[in-house]
Amino acid sequence: MARVGTRPENRHQARFLRLLRDSGPQSRAELGDAVELSKSKVAIEVERLAELGFVDVVGLAASRGGRRSQMVALSRNLRFVGIDIGATSIDVAVLDGGLNLLGQLRADTDVRLGPQPVLDQAIDLVAKVRSGLADPAGPPAGVGVGVPGPVSQAEGALVAPPIMPGWSRFPIRDQLGAALGAPVMVDNDVNVMALGELHAGTARSVRDLLFVKIGTGIGCGIVVGGEIYRGVNGSAGDIGHIQVDGHGPVCVCGNTGCLEAAFGGAALARDAEAAARGGRSDWLAQRLPQVRALSARDVGAAADAGDPVSIALIRDGGARLGKVLASLVSFFNPGLVVIGGGVAGLGHPLLAEIRSVVYRRSLPLATGNLPIVLSELGGTAGVVGAGRLISDSVFATV
Amino acid sequence: MARVGTRPENRHQARFLRLLRDSGPQSRAELGDAVELSKSKVAIEVERLAELGFVDVVGLAASRGGRRSQMVALSRNLRFVGIDIGATSIDVAVLDGGLNLLGQLRADTDVRLGPQPVLDQAIDLVAKVRSGLADPAGPPAGVGVGVPGPVSQAEGALVAPPIMPGWSRFPIRDQLGAALGAPVMVDNDVNVMALGELHAGTARSVRDLLFVKIGTGIGCGIVVGGEIYRGVNGSAGDIGHIQVDGHGPVCVCGNTGCLEAAFGGAALARDAEAAARGGRSDWLAQRLPQVRALSARDVGAAADAGDPVSIALIRDGGARLGKVLASLVSFFNPGLVVIGGGVAGLGHPLLAEIRSVVYRRSLPLATGNLPIVLSELGGTAGVVGAGRLISDSVFATV
Repeated sequence: MARVGTRPENRHQARFLRLLRDSGPQSRAELGDAVELSKSKVAIEVERLAELGFVDVVGLAASRGGRRSQMVALSRNLRFVGIDIGATSIDVAVLDGGLNLLGQLRADTDVRLGPQPVLDQAIDLVAKVRSGLADPAGPPAGVGVGVPGPVSQAEGALVAPPIMPGWSRFPIRDQLGAALGAPVMVDNDVNVMALGELHAGTARSVRDLLFVKIGTGIGCGIVVGGEIYRGVNGSAGDIGHIQVDGHGPVCVCGNTGCLEAAFGGAALARDAEAAARGGRSDWLAQRLPQVRALSARDVGAAADAGDPVSIALIRDGGARLGKVLASLVSFFNPGLVVIGGGVAGLGHPLLAEIRSVVYRRSLPLATGNLPIVLSELGGTAGVVGAGRLISDSVFATV
Repeated sequence: MARVGTRPENRHQARFLRLLRDSGPQSRAELGDAVELSKSKVAIEVERLAELGFVDVVGLAASRGGRRSQMVALSRNLRFVGIDIGATSIDVAVLDGGLNLLGQLRADTDVRLGPQPVLDQAIDLVAKVRSGLADPAGPPAGVGVGVPGPVSQAEGALVAPPIMPGWSRFPIRDQLGAALGAPVMVDNDVNVMALGELHAGTARSVRDLLFVKIGTGIGCGIVVGGEIYRGVNGSAGDIGHIQVDGHGPVCVCGNTGCLEAAFGGAALARDAEAAARGGRSDWLAQRLPQVRALSARDVGAAADAGDPVSIALIRDGGARLGKVLASLVSFFNPGLVVIGGGVAGLGHPLLAEIRSVVYRRSLPLATGNLPIVLSELGGTAGVVGAGRLISDSVFATV
């Protein structure tokens, strides 16, 4: 077990750790190929990593002609914790060094309660997940946290998050670090989910991609050269307030016609409620008294059952999002677009509409080989991405 | 003089060369501070760079307390050539190692004539500029080229450029390399102009920025972390066909309502002509017989003279471009937006309109400290950027 706060001593060691994390156990010969180091230097660096508790020697590799090379793996005692705080739920996972899920728990919460009760709940969940593990090992080597608002990396805190009263500049990183006895990194939930896709999803082999989260609101994670691009103030990817309709509904931000005012979980719930009360959808009208407040999920169920109003809501929303994405695809020329978040559960009718608009409206050169896909990770993108966030930091020289 | 094709031998040497290019002569002590190398190692690397012909020792620095350190400068014999091929003109410049202009020529051309006559003309212009120099030195260390269309970096050639028949996959890099006896790099004109701004313009200290060129069409150069971001197919920044109006005019690309169909040099000329012939603008109607075809420049002159139709054309165009930029600013969160290209000569009325829409429509977090400025380099952004393009390549290890 690496002692808490231990870091690799040089860039070769850091490179080895990331390689072992992303590609699994490697022979010393393979490690040497990857960094163009001599056999003897590789042996020295692997030795040091073993002394630091980062790696184990796990046997001998198949022969490549000469003496069989030792197989090296990340230490089986390495643990990372991923915490994904949403507006109404917390997901917590314990991961091994390769960011494989060892245990996971989800609980309802309400971020409007303020930071202290929510973080206490997260700390509790971490303890519960760890106590449920067959082999909890020691304290984690690091903790990654995703939160639903704009984050200052320098402060490890949210800055003026619109839906989270009391959280602005609350020291999330420092509080969790003290409670969990490990280095902590905090980022916004969309960036963290994009990292999850990059690590374990469809995006594994892609260097430049967009991850679009459709939840209550809409946001975008931007990956450039395999790393999250955050912009000069950390607000890059904040696409929910791009104007899609000069005369659309007034948005919470005060402008009219924002993407988020036209589509996303909140807009769908509002439109479904109006359709139910206005007598335009029998299905939604029958559903409303059962659930008290309609949600995007009800619209999805209604569409599955053939309700034409719900199908139109999904198509219309997909078309509006598609129009924004078409602009961003022309501008950014990504290698992949992944659609995730709760509302992505509306599935293929939504995806079909988005694809249709993007492929029609973006430049042929930019869409020629561009896959637009639904996230395969679903609920685990956040916690795996949070693990990736902190492991990128731990597996780096200071 | 560095022999043609010579490169620095390691990353320290490469770092020194870029530092000397960007910050001017440095003492050996300053070079050592920049790369954290010992005095003796800096001395060895500087010695090698002098032997390779890249640098000269130019005297002694002021004392920092001990022995005075040698001042090092890029060799006064270093030359780069920048070539900026536009649809109707060629600019050629010879630059020193620090990318200062030593001589420059501009000539009319027509890229529709095909690659051979245009490249022959460029080669001719290079010879003319060099023969006009007091001290032409030897062959250039490298040649950078900007061209008005999509470029494959791997091929050093244009790929299916819409306005340049006969140029697709024509080996520009290899032909110019053979004729000028130097390594050549080719990129599209907007990226090259963005590099020019980054090197010598308002953008010198900014790492993430957008450079918007408004010429006959509209394009955007994207700088991420101080380097051009090209996207997976090299088409990033191609914003001319983003939809700004569902019912706008049909574009050459076949879609309706593209930005370029609504604004830019070609659209302004078309709208001005219509206003002149339709009797809506006396000023433009009087101008038309004098020039046979109206241009964006005429619209600018008419607006300066108070012609209300021309003022409205500029405002309306600025608002449409502003709307697209507002989306891109929310998405990309740049540190600076620079507006350049011929139509940027419409100046402050255009800039005022663009600013008004962007500041109103983008997220406050993204626009809080965002300057939106006109290019200060004007006609030299292309040739300086072309020099920067090739010097980045020559001042790097292979």
